[in-house]
Amino acid sequence: MAMVCLSDFEAYAKKHLPKIAWDFFAAGADDCSTRDENILAYKRIHFRPRMLRDVSVMDIRTKLLGTEISFPVGIAPTGFHQLAWPDGEKSTARAATAMNTCYIASTYSTCTLEEIAAAAPSGIRWFQLYIHRNRAVSKQLVQRAEALGFQGLVLTADLPYTGKRRDDIRNGFRLPPHMKLKNLEGAFEVCKMSPSFHSLWCLDPSVTWNDIYWLRSLTHLPIIIKGILTKEDAELAVRHGVQGIIVSNHGGRQLDGGPATIDALVEVVEAVQGKIEVYLDGGIRKGSDILKALALGAKCVFIGRPALWGLAYKGEEGLQDVLRILQDEFRLSMALAGCARVSHIDRHLVHFSKL
Amino acid sequence: MAMVCLSDFEAYAKKHLPKIAWDFFAAGADDCSTRDENILAYKRIHFRPRMLRDVSVMDIRTKLLGTEISFPVGIAPTGFHQLAWPDGEKSTARAATAMNTCYIASTYSTCTLEEIAAAAPSGIRWFQLYIHRNRAVSKQLVQRAEALGFQGLVLTADLPYTGKRRDDIRNGFRLPPHMKLKNLEGAFEVCKMSPSFHSLWCLDPSVTWNDIYWLRSLTHLPIIIKGILTKEDAELAVRHGVQGIIVSNHGGRQLDGGPATIDALVEVVEAVQGKIEVYLDGGIRKGSDILKALALGAKCVFIGRPALWGLAYKGEEGLQDVLRILQDEFRLSMALAGCARVSHIDRHLVHFSKL
Amino acid sequence: MAMVCLSDFEAYAKKHLPKIAWDFFAAGADDCSTRDENILAYKRIHFRPRMLRDVSVMDIRTKLLGTEISFPVGIAPTGFHQLAWPDGEKSTARAATAMNTCYIASTYSTCTLEEIAAAAPSGIRWFQLYIHRNRAVSKQLVQRAEALGFQGLVLTADLPYTGKRRDDIRNGFRLPPHMKLKNLEGAFEVCKMSPSFHSLWCLDPSVTWNDIYWLRSLTHLPIIIKGILTKEDAELAVRHGVQGIIVSNHGGRQLDGGPATIDALVEVVEAVQGKIEVYLDGGIRKGSDILKALALGAKCVFIGRPALWGLAYKGEEGLQDVLRILQDEFRLSMALAGCARVSHIDRHLVHFSKL
Amino acid sequence: MAMVCLSDFEAYAKKHLPKIAWDFFAAGADDCSTRDENILAYKRIHFRPRMLRDVSVMDIRTKLLGTEISFPVGIAPTGFHQLAWPDGEKSTARAATAMNTCYIASTYSTCTLEEIAAAAPSGIRWFQLYIHRNRAVSKQLVQRAEALGFQGLVLTADLPYTGKRRDDIRNGFRLPPHMKLKNLEGAFEVCKMSPSFHSLWCLDPSVTWNDIYWLRSLTHLPIIIKGILTKEDAELAVRHGVQGIIVSNHGGRQLDGGPATIDALVEVVEAVQGKIEVYLDGGIRKGSDILKALALGAKCVFIGRPALWGLAYKGEEGLQDVLRILQDEFRLSMALAGCARVSHIDRHLVHFSKL
Repeated sequence: MAMVCLSDFEAYAKKHLPKIAWDFFAAGADDCSTRDENILAYKRIHFRPRMLRDVSVMDIRTKLLGTEISFPVGIAPTGFHQLAWPDGEKSTARAATAMNTCYIASTYSTCTLEEIAAAAPSGIRWFQLYIHRNRAVSKQLVQRAEALGFQGLVLTADLPYTGKRRDDIRNGFRLPPHMKLKNLEGAFEVCKMSPSFHSLWCLDPSVTWNDIYWLRSLTHLPIIIKGILTKEDAELAVRHGVQGIIVSNHGGRQLDGGPATIDALVEVVEAVQGKIEVYLDGGIRKGSDILKALALGAKCVFIGRPALWGLAYKGEEGLQDVLRILQDEFRLSMALAGCARVSHIDRHLVHFSKL
Repeated sequence: MAMVCLSDFEAYAKKHLPKIAWDFFAAGADDCSTRDENILAYKRIHFRPRMLRDVSVMDIRTKLLGTEISFPVGIAPTGFHQLAWPDGEKSTARAATAMNTCYIASTYSTCTLEEIAAAAPSGIRWFQLYIHRNRAVSKQLVQRAEALGFQGLVLTADLPYTGKRRDDIRNGFRLPPHMKLKNLEGAFEVCKMSPSFHSLWCLDPSVTWNDIYWLRSLTHLPIIIKGILTKEDAELAVRHGVQGIIVSNHGGRQLDGGPATIDALVEVVEAVQGKIEVYLDGGIRKGSDILKALALGAKCVFIGRPALWGLAYKGEEGLQDVLRILQDEFRLSMALAGCARVSHIDRHLVHFSKL
Repeated sequence: MAMVCLSDFEAYAKKHLPKIAWDFFAAGADDCSTRDENILAYKRIHFRPRMLRDVSVMDIRTKLLGTEISFPVGIAPTGFHQLAWPDGEKSTARAATAMNTCYIASTYSTCTLEEIAAAAPSGIRWFQLYIHRNRAVSKQLVQRAEALGFQGLVLTADLPYTGKRRDDIRNGFRLPPHMKLKNLEGAFEVCKMSPSFHSLWCLDPSVTWNDIYWLRSLTHLPIIIKGILTKEDAELAVRHGVQGIIVSNHGGRQLDGGPATIDALVEVVEAVQGKIEVYLDGGIRKGSDILKALALGAKCVFIGRPALWGLAYKGEEGLQDVLRILQDEFRLSMALAGCARVSHIDRHLVHFSKL
Repeated sequence: MAMVCLSDFEAYAKKHLPKIAWDFFAAGADDCSTRDENILAYKRIHFRPRMLRDVSVMDIRTKLLGTEISFPVGIAPTGFHQLAWPDGEKSTARAATAMNTCYIASTYSTCTLEEIAAAAPSGIRWFQLYIHRNRAVSKQLVQRAEALGFQGLVLTADLPYTGKRRDDIRNGFRLPPHMKLKNLEGAFEVCKMSPSFHSLWCLDPSVTWNDIYWLRSLTHLPIIIKGILTKEDAELAVRHGVQGIIVSNHGGRQLDGGPATIDALVEVVEAVQGKIEVYLDGGIRKGSDILKALALGAKCVFIGRPALWGLAYKGEEGLQDVLRILQDEFRLSMALAGCARVSHIDRHLVHFSKL
């Protein structure tokens, strides 16, 4: 079967992954409305493509906080990559590095930060942090990441508790015994999932904006907040001195009924007024989705599930295939819309259909 | 099968109840548009969740006319609980009391008010009234309820005649011979259902706002009007001195083509201007639905069919399961939206999608 | 099988009529978009029902140009009733008279006007006219109708040529040899249907507003124009002195892509400013549809296909069943919306949903 | 099977063409959203038909840049007609000429321009141009076309690179060995299709508005730009002195996510302010679609896939059938909307439904 577009990788992963792993990656909270909206919302945004512009020389590179990447797509932080491919996050790091883009490694990696760094020493890597009830655990993680050459710190803001993902509850989802949350080993007991209200893995639900100052005191890394969906919080992010925002609803895995990220992007970008960089994850499945997000003000987008499908297909190589397809599609969409370089993309390129 | 969300109870009840009973509980009027809209309308309301707020200590309690309940969900008045579970309304009363919330017992209960009160003496109970053509019947019911410690009187305003529920007509729905409308025994002859225009069980279709004064003369209980859907009637309710309004379309069983209750809630809340409490029933299936209703101004919501599914599953215990799931989901939704207590929920938390 | 609502009659007719006859009655033009929109549009109109009004005594009578009818539903002009029931239009006339409402007999009846009048001498009858290329034919029809006690003349304005109904072309639809267009016998040759552009049955496509003056010169009957869909034409109708307008798109059988009649009603009623009566046909399937049309300004509605389904079920008796069901449903909808009489119905009773 | 409407030809072609050819003709880019929107968008446009106008004498002729055609429908440029019928573009030319309308021959014809001209010497023909990296190739084509009596030059603006059509990639689409791009033979090597970013057949992606001046210097033919979708580009077209615009999204085969052409038409017509002629292609399937496009300001529409279906059915004869059906349907729609001639069609005839 030819791998022509990202849906092909999705179909492959669904067919070949163990059901419990597929369900975990695919899961959305409750009725999965937000998960599905993330994708549907792109269909309501129409291009206003411009013609007869010289697009013979295409340049799709961009910069992430000053660091050049090959195109405006990075790897969003997702957990448990060994569920998709034996080498887990090491493969992810290698693929991202081969494609010269940014990989945000999750707190819930099944490889250590050290293994990830060693797998692709020259790569552009950020570290995603959940703040632990025991702050010493988090402090140590941040400082390890900085020491290992991670170049950004992504604080996930939307998971004070874990969203209710019905299939995971039905499946009694747990990591297989031979996989470990290696970055957290020894730090605490892993809690079991249950249908009732609980805190997974001892995250701290008391985190507030003030903790940004605490993080700032721990590290020189730029801080990016992930999970912002409103203009009010975007303004708070600017006011608290972070360097970037990832507009995200956690792939629809947390609060079901929230907005599609591409819809929320508009108000966040407006509120931020260009003072800091704004990124987005959720629902990116085609090159034209990337173009829409950039037209609406995102500096870069990150892919979650599609990266896992790529891993499930052929590990590092499969993820590179996914990235290469997105790269080709994005370049082509840009050209067909009349943009030869990323700086040509602007708000006039799209409009919201009333349907 | 794990009971993870309310749909699981619905599926169970559909499978295990006799068809005639399931159809009666599930019935909507005519094409069931309004019944279905009650649920669909929630999908058009999106959250604007706030991040990085301390949600480590959650308090989901609220007050109903000054009385504390464990969370803003009560049991709406529905009839014939023995169709769902042998102990009928006695089980309902026990479950509501165990979960420390309010149960509105229906005029059409298959247990007497005395049995209901005795089943859970410490419970928070309101009594739902249909006004009889023979006013002495209604007067006696109201005074019995007050004497038995019921704490509120809910007047149903939307049933001057019974809505046309096609399946009930096809099934020739009637109570089985061993069940009785125990609170009305001896008071009148029960009429047969027929496809034509008629009055079921001798309700009085001449009731008007003036009858509020008559009710007021009978009892010291607070009076709540159930079935209000417009700002005009909301204003009349305030002017006639009632203590609360339940925005309701009778689960879509009366006038088909009316608005979803969550849509009607907006204009009612606006008209009432905080002078009296506003509640809602219809379409609540998840914790996030409760949160949306509260964000739009409801003080509390009531569940109808889901309570019956709980009873059908395991009686008192099954209904507690339903309430517990809603409680967990509501608490989690609040936390994920950045609200640690009910008073943190406000209108900015939601917006209406144009789709 | 119990006949509970109009869909039951539709299902019966579909099952029992010869396919060619069913297809002819069911046909819409082209893709049938307008035919289907006629029904779907009602779902976007929501009631704003009023509560606690005295609806113990219901009065659903209304007047059609001064003549009382039992409820605001008449029989729209449709052709070829013998395709549905052997007695054809005679049965229709009897049923309408038994139910004390108005029957608009079609030019394309399979009974003579004399037979129709004789079948139900006391009935309220209007005559629907297509203007023939040979004006003498039409003049004779109008004068026969007036002499026979028909009380209104309905000029169909939307059929200068026959719409393209694909199934009729595929089926090679023609009347069976034993049925005749009895009112036109001898007047002309009946043309065959073909997929190309043509004029069926020699209708005159040169008819204009000036012909209203010609009709006026032939008869004292009130003139009603059927097929108006815009405010511009509604104003012209008033200016040309007609007595009524039927907002109609010919059941979606003529120009596909036109508006649903319930949507067009709004602009027609606004333009007419109460100077003449406005009626509607198209898409009426339930009592609540009637209520919506009246709330939007229609004085009365007419049913087309449902009348044919009633005939197909049991002739005169079946059509009475259909009318009785509509009557019961309309009365119940009115009561549940808080209207005890037709004059209580007004524009505030409904609003258009944005969905 | 009777060929009653264009869908019948579509079904025939799908059944009888080799899958690879059907897929090529049917293909849209990516998810085919824009391809499908082209059709769906017509359903959201409703007529406001006018009644009682004299439509006994219908005149559906119009003029294309001064040249009369029998009705406002021409043949859009599509490639590879031999895939549909052995005689290829010769049949197309003959059919268009027999129906007295305009045929835009594609650069990618499988017959030479000379063969096309000879097949129907008296026909109205335009030539569609892709600009080659080697400008001499294009210059020669333009001058050949002019010498052969082609009367217009259509520059396609929306194909700097080929859109991503997944099925063509999966099928490894190529022309069968016995078919040739006869107008380009010897001019260059034909590139293979691949899933990655590439330029098909050596088109020049550096073309800009300045190349209009170059084209102008080569020929006296009127220049029409095909592929404009925005008001900004429409204004540029006027400013650069072209004679016409075809609002087109290449049948949804280029940038997926663009607007339906009927939606884009509105802003283009507004921007052009009548200074040049505006045409449209995409989604025309019925006579009423043509009428909608004209009401929104198109001077003429062009059909792409339906012409190929006609060829696939019976070559020249099949295409004439398609055109004749459209002609009949268009004439009928006009009449039913109250327009006896094309000049009677105006903007008031349609409105955009909010749904």
